[in-house]
Amino acid sequence: MDATDGRPPRPIRLGMVGGGEGAFIGAVHRMVARLDGQYELVAGALSASPEKSLRSGRALGLADARVYGDWETMARAEAARPDGVEAVAIVTPNHAHAGPVRGFLEAGFDVICDKPLTTTLAEARALAADVARSGRVFALTHNYTGYPLVRQMRAMVREGRLGRLRLVHAEYPQDWLTLPIERDGQKQAEWRTDPARSGAGGAIGDIGTHAFNLAEFVTGLKAEAVSAELTSFVPGRALDDDAQIRVRWSGGARGAIWCSQVAPGNENGLQLRVYGETGGMHWRQDDPNRLYFTAFGEPTRILTRGGAGTGSDAARATRIPAGHPEGYLEAFANVYVEAAAAIRARRAGLPAPPDLHFPGVEDGVRGLAFVEASVA
Amino acid sequence: MDATDGRPPRPIRLGMVGGGEGAFIGAVHRMVARLDGQYELVAGALSASPEKSLRSGRALGLADARVYGDWETMARAEAARPDGVEAVAIVTPNHAHAGPVRGFLEAGFDVICDKPLTTTLAEARALAADVARSGRVFALTHNYTGYPLVRQMRAMVREGRLGRLRLVHAEYPQDWLTLPIERDGQKQAEWRTDPARSGAGGAIGDIGTHAFNLAEFVTGLKAEAVSAELTSFVPGRALDDDAQIRVRWSGGARGAIWCSQVAPGNENGLQLRVYGETGGMHWRQDDPNRLYFTAFGEPTRILTRGGAGTGSDAARATRIPAGHPEGYLEAFANVYVEAAAAIRARRAGLPAPPDLHFPGVEDGVRGLAFVEASVA
Amino acid sequence: MDATDGRPPRPIRLGMVGGGEGAFIGAVHRMVARLDGQYELVAGALSASPEKSLRSGRALGLADARVYGDWETMARAEAARPDGVEAVAIVTPNHAHAGPVRGFLEAGFDVICDKPLTTTLAEARALAADVARSGRVFALTHNYTGYPLVRQMRAMVREGRLGRLRLVHAEYPQDWLTLPIERDGQKQAEWRTDPARSGAGGAIGDIGTHAFNLAEFVTGLKAEAVSAELTSFVPGRALDDDAQIRVRWSGGARGAIWCSQVAPGNENGLQLRVYGETGGMHWRQDDPNRLYFTAFGEPTRILTRGGAGTGSDAARATRIPAGHPEGYLEAFANVYVEAAAAIRARRAGLPAPPDLHFPGVEDGVRGLAFVEASVA
Amino acid sequence: MDATDGRPPRPIRLGMVGGGEGAFIGAVHRMVARLDGQYELVAGALSASPEKSLRSGRALGLADARVYGDWETMARAEAARPDGVEAVAIVTPNHAHAGPVRGFLEAGFDVICDKPLTTTLAEARALAADVARSGRVFALTHNYTGYPLVRQMRAMVREGRLGRLRLVHAEYPQDWLTLPIERDGQKQAEWRTDPARSGAGGAIGDIGTHAFNLAEFVTGLKAEAVSAELTSFVPGRALDDDAQIRVRWSGGARGAIWCSQVAPGNENGLQLRVYGETGGMHWRQDDPNRLYFTAFGEPTRILTRGGAGTGSDAARATRIPAGHPEGYLEAFANVYVEAAAAIRARRAGLPAPPDLHFPGVEDGVRGLAFVEASVA
Repeated sequence: MDATDGRPPRPIRLGMVGGGEGAFIGAVHRMVARLDGQYELVAGALSASPEKSLRSGRALGLADARVYGDWETMARAEAARPDGVEAVAIVTPNHAHAGPVRGFLEAGFDVICDKPLTTTLAEARALAADVARSGRVFALTHNYTGYPLVRQMRAMVREGRLGRLRLVHAEYPQDWLTLPIERDGQKQAEWRTDPARSGAGGAIGDIGTHAFNLAEFVTGLKAEAVSAELTSFVPGRALDDDAQIRVRWSGGARGAIWCSQVAPGNENGLQLRVYGETGGMHWRQDDPNRLYFTAFGEPTRILTRGGAGTGSDAARATRIPAGHPEGYLEAFANVYVEAAAAIRARRAGLPAPPDLHFPGVEDGVRGLAFVEASVA
Repeated sequence: MDATDGRPPRPIRLGMVGGGEGAFIGAVHRMVARLDGQYELVAGALSASPEKSLRSGRALGLADARVYGDWETMARAEAARPDGVEAVAIVTPNHAHAGPVRGFLEAGFDVICDKPLTTTLAEARALAADVARSGRVFALTHNYTGYPLVRQMRAMVREGRLGRLRLVHAEYPQDWLTLPIERDGQKQAEWRTDPARSGAGGAIGDIGTHAFNLAEFVTGLKAEAVSAELTSFVPGRALDDDAQIRVRWSGGARGAIWCSQVAPGNENGLQLRVYGETGGMHWRQDDPNRLYFTAFGEPTRILTRGGAGTGSDAARATRIPAGHPEGYLEAFANVYVEAAAAIRARRAGLPAPPDLHFPGVEDGVRGLAFVEASVA
Repeated sequence: MDATDGRPPRPIRLGMVGGGEGAFIGAVHRMVARLDGQYELVAGALSASPEKSLRSGRALGLADARVYGDWETMARAEAARPDGVEAVAIVTPNHAHAGPVRGFLEAGFDVICDKPLTTTLAEARALAADVARSGRVFALTHNYTGYPLVRQMRAMVREGRLGRLRLVHAEYPQDWLTLPIERDGQKQAEWRTDPARSGAGGAIGDIGTHAFNLAEFVTGLKAEAVSAELTSFVPGRALDDDAQIRVRWSGGARGAIWCSQVAPGNENGLQLRVYGETGGMHWRQDDPNRLYFTAFGEPTRILTRGGAGTGSDAARATRIPAGHPEGYLEAFANVYVEAAAAIRARRAGLPAPPDLHFPGVEDGVRGLAFVEASVA
Repeated sequence: MDATDGRPPRPIRLGMVGGGEGAFIGAVHRMVARLDGQYELVAGALSASPEKSLRSGRALGLADARVYGDWETMARAEAARPDGVEAVAIVTPNHAHAGPVRGFLEAGFDVICDKPLTTTLAEARALAADVARSGRVFALTHNYTGYPLVRQMRAMVREGRLGRLRLVHAEYPQDWLTLPIERDGQKQAEWRTDPARSGAGGAIGDIGTHAFNLAEFVTGLKAEAVSAELTSFVPGRALDDDAQIRVRWSGGARGAIWCSQVAPGNENGLQLRVYGETGGMHWRQDDPNRLYFTAFGEPTRILTRGGAGTGSDAARATRIPAGHPEGYLEAFANVYVEAAAAIRARRAGLPAPPDLHFPGVEDGVRGLAFVEASVA
């Protein structure tokens, strides 16, 4: 905390691009920004339709003057206000990330952006250069990295508790696109199955990148080669709704990434399994407060969030005692909390605090490289 | 929403009594009050020590002028301010609930109070009369009632999906008091094992009341008779750390409540099992996004939060899609959200909205009756 | 093995009383007797009806001459044969245990008897005296004691891995008597709900005794006092179909036994939880190849049958490698295997081998004492 | 049953090749052959070493005259005896299957053979021709096909309960070869990592073929193309200890097979997941008495062995009531039971009974094709 008298810093003034009526992820960003009192939403360009943006802004309690019909106007106007936003959350569909990210960075704002970073690798690389040039904080909300036991897993893998890694298996099956609901006006399904808005990857871009990022985040390995088969099972669907990917990881590890949106019985079945020369670990999003750890030759241990055997990385990411489950929102909020710490440090001219693990633009570039390699 | 132009109502101005440095539950109340943007913490009497209260208030970003050394001063001062608090959260140890509850009600405030309501049944009954007389909203934070699938379970039981009930088993084992940590200065353990601050019940008051309330909340049955054995396993401990209670429920149902704070391997193992003439259900806090439902003669079904087969009561209590786990904080926040709806309605002179299920003072009275009957 | 040349002993010649057509448990006894090649079924009085006994005997491949219409004849005839049976399995309904047990003991046979031992405590005690007087082996098939991880749990508890015990919770919920199927001619239900054949206990005698025995078997504690509520939920049912029992165990431990036959969703939900001053353990029949062990202050460990951390008692009771599930039949067969070792030793005039843990007549007496105390 | 008077047929006289001292799978074959009383072991060539064969035979209680030093002698001698064996179980290492299989078929015996069928596809095909020519029964012990809920899954998939299949994922991770135990004299590890005895596939031949067979058995689909990466993680190991295989199934389904012997924390983690246009199913060997079934748009149902919603195929493969776990041995025994029915029918000159699902030589050929395609 940078305040005197033991006071906490005031909340960071946050703007939002996208996330108007009917959007799922925008509402999530707002809840998690609010949870820890680190941000205050004060402005937004919430929709490409000015009327809808205004209506959405009012529903969120924003002042009419701080609700904009497009992000360019917002960037200009907010930059000019003494009480203007300090950071901006970009929660538009994938194809509409690069523009506002670049624009707000150039206007001097710190940026939090939903994933995947862009729709093409080339654009992702260009954006990475922009971020570097800007000197601004850039956070990419690969939110699953914020789970306390994912942090614990990362710490233990990197401490060598599994020995040299041999196998990394990540998967993210869902079932919500089992039927062609994009033809029935389901808004989320519409843009996620539309190459113009999602890019060349369907399931692989939407959730495969999460599984991929989680694997790299935890292990520190890099995917060096992929062999992929992408399928559109639902007739007429333009993008893949299933991807089977074999991966060669750096250091000689092997494994696979599977993502699917047509696997009935799986809601959001993200899981990661990692095996090394001396042990293995297993974590699943649908049971996120338990981490299974086996030191080879010993009984499997169940590490719990906040429980015995967990360390400082997990502790920093946890809010309540062991046994009281935390979930998706708390994990997501951890990305926002860490971004806040980086933003405050930057604005104060200080180096970023140590032990921040939020994903950044390089993760976004790697994600697009993964998508393009898999599609190719 | 009572606002024009599609705007949401402004946050309710909230004060807090208790919850200063080192307190667990106060921090939880603040997070959950903030999560949905329905409350703004603006004042507090956070500790019995004025210095600690001030320090705690500053750490929370309160203005010095709104931080008080005692709740009586806070009640007077806030009542006198045009921008004074509208509702107060009481998060002190049990013995210090009744005073501020009564005081703030009399001063015209709506009150949210942590459980158990008081330390004696007589005091609980007196408080219930005060609440009735005051006409104010009173919410008791039996937070487990806020879990979406607890709401689902309640709805299904009451719709008769299990038939006439036969068996109700609730349990809440923990292990954190396995050792006499109250002698090592662990603050939470100190007051929870101290009859002067906790009342006549130890584990039974602290967590037994949660299990009891959950059972009544879900089933609509009332405990008509209890047969209890309370034990203090840790030498020198003044209050029970384990309670084995057999219950006769209204309507002829039978069952048991078990709570313990000395059961190693159980963090917060609250669970509820309900069986009727035509079916059974099972819910556990450590896996809160799944509800097991068996219509007798059919395969057990796993209902998931937000998933197929869940209804409107659960939906109102849920924030994010199925498969993304919600947890303790979201459930707790649901009590605050519903209290907010009741508070807004009362302040507007309107009847409370339908379908609010937050626990109130009668639940508190019943909880103390349960404790006293079990202790006796 | 007592044979020369490395040869195994020939199978023990086994007779059976009860277990004719339509019986469930008789078929189980036959399978488990056969599994390890230790017994050969050669004779039987399989039904009270001579015709049915003969028909059942033929279906089992017995010679007609070895199939009897009543056990008295069988005892006489088999005693007179040079190739007569050596041991007898009694698998009749409860009320028909004492007669053949006593008769076969007196005729010099070793006896394996299904549980509960008898229908009254007085009769059980008399039988215990008969067993003692006979010098014969008597095994009572509390089959759950044969699970390898139950043996492991027993060994660890007795080694003090949990410290002094504080809590013992056993439960055995089923749902098959949810409806009054005894009125529809379901044979198993008929005799189990008939006081004339089952004794004073319904669920408590049939499955409560299993839970009780398992608790004592594992912990070595003795129930010193019980406080019970037995209920017949199904209208017209003469015996309890649910029992809620609070138990004071020797050494100051507390806990409960719950058994029910009207809890929809529970097939055979036997489980045991034991907590001591330094740790806790949990085992469930529906997941019998995993044992959860928590040393207080350390992560919970999952011990697997045959896996790391298990000892010799479990190893002796296991047949195949870890990860290949064993189940009910193998556990049951372990009682038969141990009984065989005792029978062979007795017949050879040798002391019984060490490390045999099969339940005996004293367990049966304790079971009836438990039933009568609970019914009273 | 082919007997008169309600008598069961006498046991089939069984011989065994391999399975001497220290062998794991031979002991399993003997237990499962015995469990249901359908076979009687009377002869064997239990080891390539005559001394060891004799010693092993005596330990099994075989007459010395029926214990042979090699399978050729056994085939001749047993064929010449009026009470000679009727069927032979081949449980040697992979490279030593083809010889005795062919030899015993030619000598007129029915044959039960452990998997994989042979070490090369060419040899497998030749053997298939031999089987066809012989007119004898040939059973390949892909034992996992015998699990009741695998049968249930197969029936439901084939009834179209999942709609047209889209995805089939099978995996079989183990951890027992994490260290180079083949160099420390562990016999099982020695031959399984030796190309001369196991063939070109290590993990893929030993357990990958099981996963592959299970997938085809349940779904009725055929693998049309594979893309595989085989790795030997343990330095100096000649065969793969991990295989990552992407599969194109007939009918347009996609999926993967993963097997590993170096994944710490996995004992025998065989599992199968199948997804179609209208539903999904999931089964795991380490929880074999539950089958998860999701009709898309409905809650997931848990089918239990013997429980509600299971059909005749599962019922035929089950021995005891729901809730009492069955395991590996019972499943394995189901293959033997079905083979017995086919053997009895053949010997009686009758057509094989309907509804037998035991794997045969074609499964063996397909397994070798899978191994060779993956290795290539």
